[in-house]
Amino acid sequence: MFKDSRLILGTGGATSLASLEAAIVASGTDLVTVALRRVDAAGPGLLPMLSRLGVRLLPNTAGCYTAADAVKTARMAREAFETDLLKLEVIGDDRTLLPDGLELLRAAETLVADGFTVLPYTSDDPVLATRLAGVGCAAVMPAGSPIGSGLGISNPHHIRLIRQAVDVPVVLDAGIGTASDAALAMELGCDAVLVASAVTRAADPARMATAMRHAVQAGMLAASAGRIPRRFHALASTADEGAAQW
Amino acid sequence: MFKDSRLILGTGGATSLASLEAAIVASGTDLVTVALRRVDAAGPGLLPMLSRLGVRLLPNTAGCYTAADAVKTARMAREAFETDLLKLEVIGDDRTLLPDGLELLRAAETLVADGFTVLPYTSDDPVLATRLAGVGCAAVMPAGSPIGSGLGISNPHHIRLIRQAVDVPVVLDAGIGTASDAALAMELGCDAVLVASAVTRAADPARMATAMRHAVQAGMLAASAGRIPRRFHALASTADEGAAQW
Amino acid sequence: MFKDSRLILGTGGATSLASLEAAIVASGTDLVTVALRRVDAAGPGLLPMLSRLGVRLLPNTAGCYTAADAVKTARMAREAFETDLLKLEVIGDDRTLLPDGLELLRAAETLVADGFTVLPYTSDDPVLATRLAGVGCAAVMPAGSPIGSGLGISNPHHIRLIRQAVDVPVVLDAGIGTASDAALAMELGCDAVLVASAVTRAADPARMATAMRHAVQAGMLAASAGRIPRRFHALASTADEGAAQW
Amino acid sequence: MFKDSRLILGTGGATSLASLEAAIVASGTDLVTVALRRVDAAGPGLLPMLSRLGVRLLPNTAGCYTAADAVKTARMAREAFETDLLKLEVIGDDRTLLPDGLELLRAAETLVADGFTVLPYTSDDPVLATRLAGVGCAAVMPAGSPIGSGLGISNPHHIRLIRQAVDVPVVLDAGIGTASDAALAMELGCDAVLVASAVTRAADPARMATAMRHAVQAGMLAASAGRIPRRFHALASTADEGAAQW
Repeated sequence: MFKDSRLILGTGGATSLASLEAAIVASGTDLVTVALRRVDAAGPGLLPMLSRLGVRLLPNTAGCYTAADAVKTARMAREAFETDLLKLEVIGDDRTLLPDGLELLRAAETLVADGFTVLPYTSDDPVLATRLAGVGCAAVMPAGSPIGSGLGISNPHHIRLIRQAVDVPVVLDAGIGTASDAALAMELGCDAVLVASAVTRAADPARMATAMRHAVQAGMLAASAGRIPRRFHALASTADEGAAQW
Repeated sequence: MFKDSRLILGTGGATSLASLEAAIVASGTDLVTVALRRVDAAGPGLLPMLSRLGVRLLPNTAGCYTAADAVKTARMAREAFETDLLKLEVIGDDRTLLPDGLELLRAAETLVADGFTVLPYTSDDPVLATRLAGVGCAAVMPAGSPIGSGLGISNPHHIRLIRQAVDVPVVLDAGIGTASDAALAMELGCDAVLVASAVTRAADPARMATAMRHAVQAGMLAASAGRIPRRFHALASTADEGAAQW
Repeated sequence: MFKDSRLILGTGGATSLASLEAAIVASGTDLVTVALRRVDAAGPGLLPMLSRLGVRLLPNTAGCYTAADAVKTARMAREAFETDLLKLEVIGDDRTLLPDGLELLRAAETLVADGFTVLPYTSDDPVLATRLAGVGCAAVMPAGSPIGSGLGISNPHHIRLIRQAVDVPVVLDAGIGTASDAALAMELGCDAVLVASAVTRAADPARMATAMRHAVQAGMLAASAGRIPRRFHALASTADEGAAQW
Repeated sequence: MFKDSRLILGTGGATSLASLEAAIVASGTDLVTVALRRVDAAGPGLLPMLSRLGVRLLPNTAGCYTAADAVKTARMAREAFETDLLKLEVIGDDRTLLPDGLELLRAAETLVADGFTVLPYTSDDPVLATRLAGVGCAAVMPAGSPIGSGLGISNPHHIRLIRQAVDVPVVLDAGIGTASDAALAMELGCDAVLVASAVTRAADPARMATAMRHAVQAGMLAASAGRIPRRFHALASTADEGAAQW
C-alpha cells in the first residue's frame, strides 16, 4: 500500500493551490487524502492538480459524525473519485475531533462488506484497533494527538501496544507538529505517517514537507537498524584505554 | 565550520574498520572525531581510511580528567593530526562521563590562547556554556545525556536556553540513541549533532548512519520552516464545511 | 460519593489479610473494591475484615470479557454484597487488560436501566467517556495506563480532556505506580484515585497506603490553590533589589 | 538538619505578611530562608513574625553574582541573623538565575573554611555537586528548573545521578510548581524540598503550603515503601481466576 516515502499528505489547511502543490512535490508522497465534505481552500483546481502530479487519491469522510453519514459519504466518494480506497473518519466530538469508536466500527463493517479498502482514523486504543483489524480494515490510523493540535504523539506506549496488537499496517494520523514527531512515529513501529496541518499550515509548507520526507525516512531506517539500549550510566566509546597510537 | 550534513561522527565503539567506513560513507559526514588517548577497535588502519575518504579530523581529548592532562593531550594531537581543531573533553566522573566544568574552562582558556579552535564537550548548563563562549571557544557541545547512554535529550529546555545564551554554534554531543533524538536536537536550535555509539554500536551501523543523515536534515529544515503552534484542542483541517464539490 | 480521602483501594494482589488490613487502615479510605469473579489471596476472611473496618464495598466485574458476562456478574454481585454500587469492568484484551469500549457501553446501558450506580472502568478516550456519562453512569474511571503496569498517567492531556468533557466525577483508575502519580491525577482535575497493585504489591503496603493518602490530599489541595504559571525563563523571588534591611 | 516536614519555605514573592504567616504555619516547616540583599514585600515585620513562629532561619545570598560578593554577604548575614547556616547562591545569569558553578565552588570553599554550614544552590550537574560535597558543603541544593519558572523537575535523571554521587543531603531547590513536583523530588531520593514562589505566588498560599506539606510526606514515604516495578504490559490484580466465593 505504501511506497518508499511512507508519507501521506492531507490537503486541508492549505492556503493556496500553489503552496499545496509545492508541498506535495517536496514531500515525495504518492498518496494524498482529500475530503469530500469540506470546502477546501485549494478550491476547484485541486483535483486537476493532483491528477497532473500523478498522485493517488485517498478520499476521506471528514465532517461525518455518524456511521450512516460516513457510509453515505464514502459511497459518494467512491463515485466521485473512482477508487475503493477510503480513509474512514467518524468524529465523536467537536472540540477534540477524536473518533467515535462505536460508530467507526459500525461504519467499517459496512464498508468492508461493501468492497472498500478501509483505513479508519481511530483513537490510540489498542482494543479498538484490534476490533477494526478484526472486521477487515486494511490498516489502522491511530491519532497521535488531536487533529491540528501539533502536540505530537501524546502516548507512545499506546502506539507500541497497537503495533503489537494488529497485523495490518499502522499509520500515525493526526497530531504531528514537526519532523521529530514523524521520525518517532516510525521508530515506534508505524508503517507510515499522515500529515496535514503540520505541513499546510507551516510558515513554509514546502520546506516542512521536505523535512517530513527526511524524517519519515530517518525513522523507518532507525527502526530497523537495531538501536543501542538505554543505559542509566555512561558507556565510554572505547573501553580499553592506552597510549596514543599515532 | 559545518557543511551540509551537520552531522559529526565519532569513531569510538566501532566493531570493525569496514563497518566504520560504511557508516562514515552512509552518514555523508565530512568531519570525524578521533581520540588520541584510546585504543580504537578500528586499530592502525583508521587514519589511512579516514584520509582516503577525504573527511576532516576533529581530534578529541577523551580519557583526560584534568585541565593539565587535556592541554598536554591536545598539543600532542595537534602534532599528530596536523590540525588546530579540537574537541576538548575533560571528564569529571567515571560513571557519568560528564565534564568537569572548572577544569574544562581552565583548559579552554589555555588552548584558545594557544591558537586552537576549541569545541568543548560541556554539560547542558547555560551559564557554563556562556563562560566557554566568553573565553573564545569556537562552539559549545552540550551533552544531551551521558555518553553512550542512548537516553536522548534529557532536558530540552536547557538546550533551548543554551541556544539563546550563546552566539557560537551549538553542537548536541552525547546521549543520542536514535534518529528522532537527532531531529529534535536540530529543532531545538542546534547547528549540528555528534553521534558515536548510536551509530557504531547499532546492529547495522551503516543503516543507522543513513537514518541520522536524514534526521539531521529533517530537523534542520523543520527548525526553519515555521512549525504550527501547539494547541490544547483540535483544529479542523478546513474550517468551512460545505457540500461535496466534485 | 467520595468522602475526604478521595482514595479507593483495590484488594487484588494483597499477599496476606493482615497486610491488606494494615494498608486499608493506613489509607484512610472508606471505599474498597472487591472482585466477585476472582479468587483473592486474602481468602475467605476478606469480607468479615472489611465489615469490621466499616468500609463500603464497591464490587467489580473483573475477569469479564463481554457485556453479557459483566451484566450477569454484576447482578450476582448485587445479591452477594447487597449494594447497587458497581465498578463495571469489561476487558478487551489479555495483555493490556484495557476495556472494550463497545461491550462496556452496552453493559453500562443495561445496568443503569437495572438500577445500578455504575462506575465504568474505561480507556482515556474522551469520546467514550462522554458516551458513558450520556447513558447515565455515575462517574467515569479512565485508566492512566494498563492495570498493574505502574506506568502512571501515560497521557495527562487525555485526562484533562475527559475532565472538560463530562460533568460526572472522574476517578483515575489503573496504572498508578507511586505517590506523585496520584497527586498528578488530582491536579489534572480528577475527583478521586483508585489504587490496587501500587499498594498491595509494594514492599511495604501500609507505608505506601499512607503515602497515597497524603498524595491524594496534596493533589486535591494543589488543584484548587491556583498554581503559578509555567515560565520559560526565571522569575526572581523578589523583583526589587536593595540594601540589607536588618 | 531536616525535621519531619522536610519542607523548607522561601519568603520571596509573598504578597503580604499575613499570607506568608498563614503559609508558613500551614506548611508545618521549621526552616525558612530569607534574603539579606533583597527588599522583601513582607517588609520590616518579617523577622519578628518568624521569631514568633519559632522557625529557624536559613539566610541566603540571593542577588550575588560573584564569589567575593557572596562571601561578604554571607558574613553580613551571619552577623545579622546570628546563625552559621547559609544557603549559598551565586547567580550566573539574569534570565535563568542559574548558579555560576565556578564562583559558587570558590565561595563555598571560603565559607566552609570560615565555619559556615554551607548549603549551596547548584545546577543539576552531578560533577559539580560532587565537587561541592568534596569541599565540605553540608548539603547540595540542585535546581529542578529555573527559579520561579514552575517547570518542575526538568531532568529527573540528573537528580538521581546526584543522589547516587554524594553522601550529603540533597535538597531540591527551585522550579517546583505544584504538589506532584515536590512528591517526585522526594521519590527521586531527595532529603528535602525548598519551595518559594510556588507557595507565595499561588492564588491561595496557605492552601498550596498545605498541599506541599502532604506532597513531601507522600514522596518521602513512597520512596521507602518499595514501589512496584514498571511493566510494559498489564498485570492482573489477581492471577488466579475462579468462581465467586461469597
